[in-house]
Amino acid sequence: MDACVTPLRHGGLSLVQTTDFFYPLVDDPYMMGRIACANVLSDLYAMGVTECDNMLALLAVSNKMGDKERDVVVPLMLTGFKDLAEEANTQVTGGQTVINPWMTIGGVATTVCQPNEFIMPDNAVIGDVLVLTKPLGTQVAVNAYQWLDQPERWNRIKLVVSEEDVKKAYQRAMFSMARLNRTAARLMHKYNAHGATDVTGFGLLGHASNLARIQKNEVGFVIHNLPIIAKMAAVSKACGNMFGLLQGQSAETSGGLLITLPREQAAAFCKDIEKQEGYQAWIIGIVEKGNRSARIIDKPRVIEVPAKEKEGELW
Amino acid sequence: MDACVTPLRHGGLSLVQTTDFFYPLVDDPYMMGRIACANVLSDLYAMGVTECDNMLALLAVSNKMGDKERDVVVPLMLTGFKDLAEEANTQVTGGQTVINPWMTIGGVATTVCQPNEFIMPDNAVIGDVLVLTKPLGTQVAVNAYQWLDQPERWNRIKLVVSEEDVKKAYQRAMFSMARLNRTAARLMHKYNAHGATDVTGFGLLGHASNLARIQKNEVGFVIHNLPIIAKMAAVSKACGNMFGLLQGQSAETSGGLLITLPREQAAAFCKDIEKQEGYQAWIIGIVEKGNRSARIIDKPRVIEVPAKEKEGELW
Repeated sequence: MDACVTPLRHGGLSLVQTTDFFYPLVDDPYMMGRIACANVLSDLYAMGVTECDNMLALLAVSNKMGDKERDVVVPLMLTGFKDLAEEANTQVTGGQTVINPWMTIGGVATTVCQPNEFIMPDNAVIGDVLVLTKPLGTQVAVNAYQWLDQPERWNRIKLVVSEEDVKKAYQRAMFSMARLNRTAARLMHKYNAHGATDVTGFGLLGHASNLARIQKNEVGFVIHNLPIIAKMAAVSKACGNMFGLLQGQSAETSGGLLITLPREQAAAFCKDIEKQEGYQAWIIGIVEKGNRSARIIDKPRVIEVPAKEKEGELW
Repeated sequence: MDACVTPLRHGGLSLVQTTDFFYPLVDDPYMMGRIACANVLSDLYAMGVTECDNMLALLAVSNKMGDKERDVVVPLMLTGFKDLAEEANTQVTGGQTVINPWMTIGGVATTVCQPNEFIMPDNAVIGDVLVLTKPLGTQVAVNAYQWLDQPERWNRIKLVVSEEDVKKAYQRAMFSMARLNRTAARLMHKYNAHGATDVTGFGLLGHASNLARIQKNEVGFVIHNLPIIAKMAAVSKACGNMFGLLQGQSAETSGGLLITLPREQAAAFCKDIEKQEGYQAWIIGIVEKGNRSARIIDKPRVIEVPAKEKEGELW
C-alpha cells in the first residue's frame, strides 16, 4: 500500500499517512517544490483519500550553496510546496530543516478518515481494466534535457529529436509531475475503483507488480498500451533503451495513478477526468486470471502524448 | 509549540504531530536509533500527549558506507528506533529511506487527541516554578568523549577530568538521551502543568525563551539552578566555556521537559517522577512578572548529576 492505515482509539476512524523526500531533478526551485508536494500527496490519493488534514515539510539545505543562492532557492521551493498544498485544500504546519551535502525536499501527508473515505487497493477482479492517469517518460525527459549540455550524450539522440522537442518534453514532464492526482482520487469513488497505486520510482511495471502481488483474488495484470510523453519513446530507443521505458522499468517522479476499475466504468472515468482536468487518462491493460503478477505484452502500443502538437499549447 | 495541533473534521478531535531528523552523535547504532526515537516523541510529550498513534521512520543511508558496514549499522539503528517505539506503546508503520552522503535518522510522530489529552504550553502564571526532567550537558559529554582521541583537545581538559570521568559522562548522556519523556508527560496532567517544552538544539535558555515568548500572561522565567551531568560543568569551563553550557546555550539532544508547574505541585511532581522512573527532576527556576523573556541568574547553582558516584551504578 502507498500509505499506512492505522486504526485509531476514536470512533472507527483511521489515520492514513505517508512520507517521501527527494533530490531535486528540475532546475526551477518553485516547480521542484510543487513536484515534491504532489509526489507526497500522491500516496494518499492512491488510497482514494481526497482530503489531507495536515502536511509537514522535510528540508535538507545543501551546505554547498552560497548564502545568496540559498536565500533565493529555499524560499522558492517552500513557496511551491505550500502553494500546491493550498491547491490541494490542505496546509503545511510544521516540519524540520537540516544542513546536508545534498539538497532534499519532501514531506509528510496525514489524514484522519472514516472507513468510506479510503479505498483498500486489493479488490481487483477478473474483467477489470487498468487505467493510468499521467503519461510515462518523466525520467527520460529530464535526462534528455540535461544532455543538451553534454555533446557526447546528445549526439546519441539528436537524430531522433530536435532541441526544441526535448525542451518541450521537459516542460511537459515538469508540469505533469507538479500536477495533483486529487481529481483521480475523487473519481475512484464515483466509478467504484477496486484499488490503485501511484507510479513512481519502480516504474510502471514495478508498481503494477506490487499492486498485483497484494490482490485478494487470483488475478494478473496485462499491460498493452504505454502512454508516453511525445518523442520520449524514440529517445529511449536511440540511447539503447538504457531506461527500460518500453519495458515499464523507467523510474517516474510524481507519476499518475494506476487504477483497477470495472470495465464498463473505466471509459466513463477517463471521459470524466478529461472533462474535469483537461488532461487525458488511458485504459492501458486488463485484469485476468493469474498468479498475482504483472506483465507488459511483447509489442505494446506506444501512445504519444499529446498525439499532435498544437501551436502555443503544451498538451 | 513543539508539535503542531490541527483541528480535524471529526468530532472535536485534533491531529498532533511532529517530525525531526538528526545526524548520528553516538558510536552505538542501536542506541542512536533509540535516541532518535526518544527525540521525535519528545515533542509530543512536551504537549502533554502520552499516546502516540503512529510513527514513520526517516532514514538516509550514507553512500560512504561499505555494504558490510551498512548491513550491520542500518538494521541496528532501526531496531533501536522500533524497540523504543514499542516501549512507548506505539509502532513504526511506514517511512522513507534514501541514499545520502551523511547518515541521518529521524521520524514522524502522530496522534489524534481529544481536547483534554494535550496541554497548551502558554498558561504559566506568576508564582509557578520551572521543573527540568533531565540533566544538561549532553553535547559537552559527547564532544569530550570524541576528544579522547584528539590529544590537542584532550590536553585542554585533562586537568579537570579523568578518562574514566569522560567515558562515564558519555554513557550517562547516551542513556539520558535514549530515555522517553513519557512519564513526565503523564505527570503533567496529574500535577496540573501550565505548559512545557523539550530542551534540544537551542539549549536550555533558548527553549526557555521560546516558551516564555508565547505565554498569555505577562510573565518572565528566571533560572537559578543548572543540573548538569557530573564533571561536565568543569569540562565546559576548562575549554574556555566554548559550549556556553553555564549560560544555557549548549545544544542538547533529546533533553528533558522544561515544565511550568504551580509551586505547591512541583515538589510532588519531582518526588513522583523519581519514584516512578528512578531518575531525578529538579526545580530550576521561577515564573515572575515579566515581558515574556527568560534569563539565567549571574551565578547559577550547578547541581552535579549524580551528586555522588556509586560503585557499579551509572546514576
